[in-house]
Amino acid sequence: MTDIAQHILLMGKRARAAAHELVKLSTAQKNDILRAMAGGLRDHAQPILEANARDVAEAETKGLSKPMVDRLRLTPESLEAIAAAIEQVATLPDPVGEILSETTRPNGLHITKIRVPIGVIGIIYESRPNVTSDAAVLCFKTGNATILRGGSEAFHSNTALANALQQGGEKAGLPAHSIQLVPFTDRESVDHMAKMDQYLDLIIPRGGQSLVERVVNVARMPVLKHYHGVCHVYLHRDADLKKAIDIVVNSKTQKPGVCNTLETLLVDTDLAPTFYPALASALAAKNVEVRGDATVLTHWPDAKPVTEEDWSTEYLDLILSVKTVDTLEEAVAHINHYGSHHTDSIVTENADAAQQFLHETDTAVAMWNASTRFNDGGEFGFGAEIGISTDKLHARGPMGLAELCSYKYLVTGNGQIR
Amino acid sequence: MTDIAQHILLMGKRARAAAHELVKLSTAQKNDILRAMAGGLRDHAQPILEANARDVAEAETKGLSKPMVDRLRLTPESLEAIAAAIEQVATLPDPVGEILSETTRPNGLHITKIRVPIGVIGIIYESRPNVTSDAAVLCFKTGNATILRGGSEAFHSNTALANALQQGGEKAGLPAHSIQLVPFTDRESVDHMAKMDQYLDLIIPRGGQSLVERVVNVARMPVLKHYHGVCHVYLHRDADLKKAIDIVVNSKTQKPGVCNTLETLLVDTDLAPTFYPALASALAAKNVEVRGDATVLTHWPDAKPVTEEDWSTEYLDLILSVKTVDTLEEAVAHINHYGSHHTDSIVTENADAAQQFLHETDTAVAMWNASTRFNDGGEFGFGAEIGISTDKLHARGPMGLAELCSYKYLVTGNGQIR
Repeated sequence: MTDIAQHILLMGKRARAAAHELVKLSTAQKNDILRAMAGGLRDHAQPILEANARDVAEAETKGLSKPMVDRLRLTPESLEAIAAAIEQVATLPDPVGEILSETTRPNGLHITKIRVPIGVIGIIYESRPNVTSDAAVLCFKTGNATILRGGSEAFHSNTALANALQQGGEKAGLPAHSIQLVPFTDRESVDHMAKMDQYLDLIIPRGGQSLVERVVNVARMPVLKHYHGVCHVYLHRDADLKKAIDIVVNSKTQKPGVCNTLETLLVDTDLAPTFYPALASALAAKNVEVRGDATVLTHWPDAKPVTEEDWSTEYLDLILSVKTVDTLEEAVAHINHYGSHHTDSIVTENADAAQQFLHETDTAVAMWNASTRFNDGGEFGFGAEIGISTDKLHARGPMGLAELCSYKYLVTGNGQIR
Repeated sequence: MTDIAQHILLMGKRARAAAHELVKLSTAQKNDILRAMAGGLRDHAQPILEANARDVAEAETKGLSKPMVDRLRLTPESLEAIAAAIEQVATLPDPVGEILSETTRPNGLHITKIRVPIGVIGIIYESRPNVTSDAAVLCFKTGNATILRGGSEAFHSNTALANALQQGGEKAGLPAHSIQLVPFTDRESVDHMAKMDQYLDLIIPRGGQSLVERVVNVARMPVLKHYHGVCHVYLHRDADLKKAIDIVVNSKTQKPGVCNTLETLLVDTDLAPTFYPALASALAAKNVEVRGDATVLTHWPDAKPVTEEDWSTEYLDLILSVKTVDTLEEAVAHINHYGSHHTDSIVTENADAAQQFLHETDTAVAMWNASTRFNDGGEFGFGAEIGISTDKLHARGPMGLAELCSYKYLVTGNGQIR
């Protein structure tokens, strides 16, 4: 066994021991620890900023792009924002201990299903150092131990942040090794984590497609994925023109670089002559490039021809593919075939059509007369968001604190036997 | 690509198309189809029994053990029982469509979380042909398409059963390819299924450790596992002697070959002089072999010395390992270290001790003064059981119909944008 493998195994063993201690903490104790973690960040502000300056300098030497370097950079203000965010998490309701169901069986056995921590969660992520704090803090709030493995660019920042959180938390009773950062940034360490199912109950990759692919291929434990978002808006023949324009413009342009942004617009063929010119001027005002089929090209000034590849492309940019469809069934079939099961919205005044769309699209969040941008933990009122799951098991759509929990059954009897 | 790989990919594509049709069926339509499936089994009784006779003859020629051959054998009576079980499933409540939560946001968006089918489920199983029907029927009841891959011993029986179910169901509107059986029994076909995450949303291996291991290693989609059960009963120092004897004898001997049977007994050291002799005579009457530590050997006639390996062994036989512990903490630590997180029970009259045990054991079903044998879908009132999950994500403990479902969010607005 390599040194890296041995070290990661030791981290796993320690995380499991921490998890068995974490389960004993009350909500009040956890919230005290969270505030102490925020204090830890403030106390360690200087070493954290120094470590970050080292990462930034290395990134600049390596010639990383300016947006990449900016994502890496911490300032006294952004560090204070991270600390304040931890204090905010302390104020959120604790899902652990929540009773999910309760029943008494004819033989008198009382069965209670309650929310409990998952145990040990592995988080594998790329550049942004604030993920170190966000992920560790939300996992801790729900009683989980974490093993964090960040990207090489933010290595010194991540190490300093994780130490500050763990050491700060320990002042208020955080069990040892509750938050651990993997001291390796090579790919081998990802593989060792992903195979360690005796200690890791869940692994969450947060990063690009190739990282997610690697984890999915190797992992023996459950993986919660946040794949790409190829989201659709469908303008049904009974769509209201004003709502249609508002929703399309907002879904496409309010924040084009995120997963819940609109990528493909489907439009009923009857609407083409009137809606396309109106949409064209509204989107031209926002500098959106449009790629469409033959009908689109007829009615939409400046539209370019679409290719087959466009239908499954997540542009994350001011580009929109547009397809003309004859029926609601055709729209649903297109979405289920080319989409990423993330967010899909119908615009219509026809309730029957809307219900059919909501139920037949195989998507995490199906919408009626609303912008795709509302698929978001904050907009759903979750208080905190870990990500948006494109999986169908355990968590689908926006993930809040409850999605970082498992459950168990407590069965109480007075000597029952079978 | 091999012929097998191509064929399995085609099955996946067809299953996905079936899943998109299945989501449109109402509960009443699904129940009609279930009754038609039962009819299909009755109509095809002769070809099914002929196919089964062929499997049984081949098994006997190959020299399979008598219990193996018996597990394989179908009779007119057992086939009728399978058909009647399908009709029973038709009477169960449908979890699909159930509203899990509902909220209206300050901006007027109405968000409903509802239960929906998972989509396409792969089931990989070994000898018993009745699994073909059980698995397909429960998956169908919850609106899922299935790809079944049974063992080679039951190949002809499984093929005949799957055909009868699909053809019978089609008479009442079952979409084509809703129930498909893989026509290969080599290991390669398991690997192709486990990698096909574009079409399979979930894979459930039902069989021995090596099958489960293989699926876990290869699978790209979520796996729901039913690993072994190393279950414990802990006799706390405030245990009632009569309850203790009843629960230990029942947990160990009522059905020793199943996963929720007791394998390791933990006993408070204060109880050793009185409880061990009493337990010894009760268990001797049931021919249970006992392996214990030094304290056990002192007080328990005929006990043999235990080895380190015993603590993690699932005997599935009339064998019991017994350990003497000084504290509740030691009992919990032993269970969390050596157990399989399946079922663990404390016997005590002390409510505080019981609560500590229930919350600190890292187990799917933690019990107080009850036999471990109650960890069972039927005993929990689930109506149907797919298995007992030893996983912590999506499903933990007994899995009923609800655990064969995912959820989605339906968001209704009137033109909201961000």
